[in-house]
Amino acid sequence: MAQLSIHLSAIKANYDLLKARVGNACDVAGVVKANAYGLGVSRVAGALRDAGCTTFFAATLPESIELRMLLGASPTIAMLNGFAPQDAELYHENTITPVLNDIEQVNAYQRFSSAQNTHMPAIAHIDTGMNRLGIHPGDMSADMFDGLNIRALMSHFISSEEKESPLNPKQNKAFQTIVSAFPAMPKSLCNSAGIFLSDDYHYDMVRPGMALYGLNPTPYAANPMHDVVTLDAKILQIHSVRKNETAGYNATYRFEKDSAVAIVDIGYADGLFRKTSNTANLSYNGIACPIRGNVSMDLTIIDLANIPESQMPKTGDMVEVIGPNQSADDLARDAQTIGYEILTSLSRRFERNYT
Amino acid sequence: MAQLSIHLSAIKANYDLLKARVGNACDVAGVVKANAYGLGVSRVAGALRDAGCTTFFAATLPESIELRMLLGASPTIAMLNGFAPQDAELYHENTITPVLNDIEQVNAYQRFSSAQNTHMPAIAHIDTGMNRLGIHPGDMSADMFDGLNIRALMSHFISSEEKESPLNPKQNKAFQTIVSAFPAMPKSLCNSAGIFLSDDYHYDMVRPGMALYGLNPTPYAANPMHDVVTLDAKILQIHSVRKNETAGYNATYRFEKDSAVAIVDIGYADGLFRKTSNTANLSYNGIACPIRGNVSMDLTIIDLANIPESQMPKTGDMVEVIGPNQSADDLARDAQTIGYEILTSLSRRFERNYT
Repeated sequence: MAQLSIHLSAIKANYDLLKARVGNACDVAGVVKANAYGLGVSRVAGALRDAGCTTFFAATLPESIELRMLLGASPTIAMLNGFAPQDAELYHENTITPVLNDIEQVNAYQRFSSAQNTHMPAIAHIDTGMNRLGIHPGDMSADMFDGLNIRALMSHFISSEEKESPLNPKQNKAFQTIVSAFPAMPKSLCNSAGIFLSDDYHYDMVRPGMALYGLNPTPYAANPMHDVVTLDAKILQIHSVRKNETAGYNATYRFEKDSAVAIVDIGYADGLFRKTSNTANLSYNGIACPIRGNVSMDLTIIDLANIPESQMPKTGDMVEVIGPNQSADDLARDAQTIGYEILTSLSRRFERNYT
Repeated sequence: MAQLSIHLSAIKANYDLLKARVGNACDVAGVVKANAYGLGVSRVAGALRDAGCTTFFAATLPESIELRMLLGASPTIAMLNGFAPQDAELYHENTITPVLNDIEQVNAYQRFSSAQNTHMPAIAHIDTGMNRLGIHPGDMSADMFDGLNIRALMSHFISSEEKESPLNPKQNKAFQTIVSAFPAMPKSLCNSAGIFLSDDYHYDMVRPGMALYGLNPTPYAANPMHDVVTLDAKILQIHSVRKNETAGYNATYRFEKDSAVAIVDIGYADGLFRKTSNTANLSYNGIACPIRGNVSMDLTIIDLANIPESQMPKTGDMVEVIGPNQSADDLARDAQTIGYEILTSLSRRFERNYT
């Protein structure tokens, strides 16, 4: 069976690295939505707490409640997908801090807060151009948060992994203008990549996700983060192939010479995207073995032509899918996507080890 | 939260349809690997058993053992990924029928069988051109299965969903030639699509997977199968956008006119592939709403421009991702993949209903 190893020590080291980068005056929250980007929220959130993280971001209410159960009473748990009035009691019972994404949500939360006779905690999300979630700047007014305890005013970068994108300073300027009306409230603008753009963008809290998990927040430069994930798959069978034979479904690859192939126990049902068919490599002892033909649901065919006769693998040996020779970002390139989607697609069929 | 409905009654109807097609002399096995193609093996395998299925195919040993626990002692559970000698006791204890994929596995299983003083059951897989798993025809000999109880000789089509592919009759002919040396052993060649190619290919057992789950085994014609999956996602927020504003990460879509968008609580972490960015539609009341900008991890932006003012949705309404207006096969086309990968990528974050 394929083996997924998640290095919790690297996640901690990444948290420390970001903490050092932003300095003590700035809070480093941990974004652990989507099962901590596929890596397993229970272990990952625990590791982040041990590293000193006290604010966690989830996307959905079930994720938020799960986090509260995992982490106990003390951390702040914020929910990005907003406040739904019909779930108000659940937010309250579990002390979930909703991220308020439009005026409707602000008003509904104010009514709920008022009914509790208290100033309930919230984060307010202002849209500075993403056009996804967030309060429209035109809807802002000085007294709009009366009756609430606003823990942060936040916005979200559109293109922060593009160092020279004019959108970054443009969004920061828009954010600055808007939040200047609320001098007493903490501010937050940065995702992982934003942290590396400019110290001016750090404000009072940053909200890294991908960088904690070892993806590269600076694709224009070497990855400053520690590798978190290794994924190895097992060779089920090795056999020779002859020139002009084909590989896999629909015969999309034709061998140009006699060779040998290994059949590996990982497929698209495990998150090795079918888009990697005939494009990506897996590696054996550091030697690249190209994927031949279409990736199947449970199996992948790799070519052993690059491996010297004396170093040929045998049945039961492991090949690297993600690791020192190929990062999740590298694999994403071959799959025509981004490293995030590689991580969130990792299968529950793997044997998982946390180190 | 997004809602995934799996219509077990449709799976049963699909089983009946295939059974009627192949006739009583031919066994219809159920392929339930990869968590029953992502639909949930416990409920799906139970439904197939209720429909009369007595042979189940899994890919891996953990899947096979899980099936044995789910289904009790009586069904045949076959494991496609082969026989690994170090796991021999586990196959034996759980009465797993291994699919023997090369001579090495045949010989190892013969030794194990001999040590148990019995003729142990197995399926032998012969490669007729796939170059994935399977015994090479050149390695076949008349006495090669001595000491084993061979329940079936099987092979696997390369391009059975292409009706006119010359590979189909070519593989059938190769299979016929090889199996003619073993007249007493049952034979099996067809996956879902193979069943619809020719009655001559049915032999003694067929092994459908995708057709049971409502994917189209005849892409050259209307889908003969019943729809199994519906997936609906919830609108978290609706807001207006102005001409020339952009949508989502990296501003990959620019609105050509003033419009309104809905932000839906489904993203690529849920299996809505990022490749559907700016290509696929979700639908509201049967009206297509194009995805605008990049699909995010947990959220997707759709354009409401096609919806008449009087029918505008509101926050909390559901939109269709897979259903009467868009099959998994349709969505696959927009995601540049196949329906199988859509199904196996469906998230565990959904609320699942079985009907």
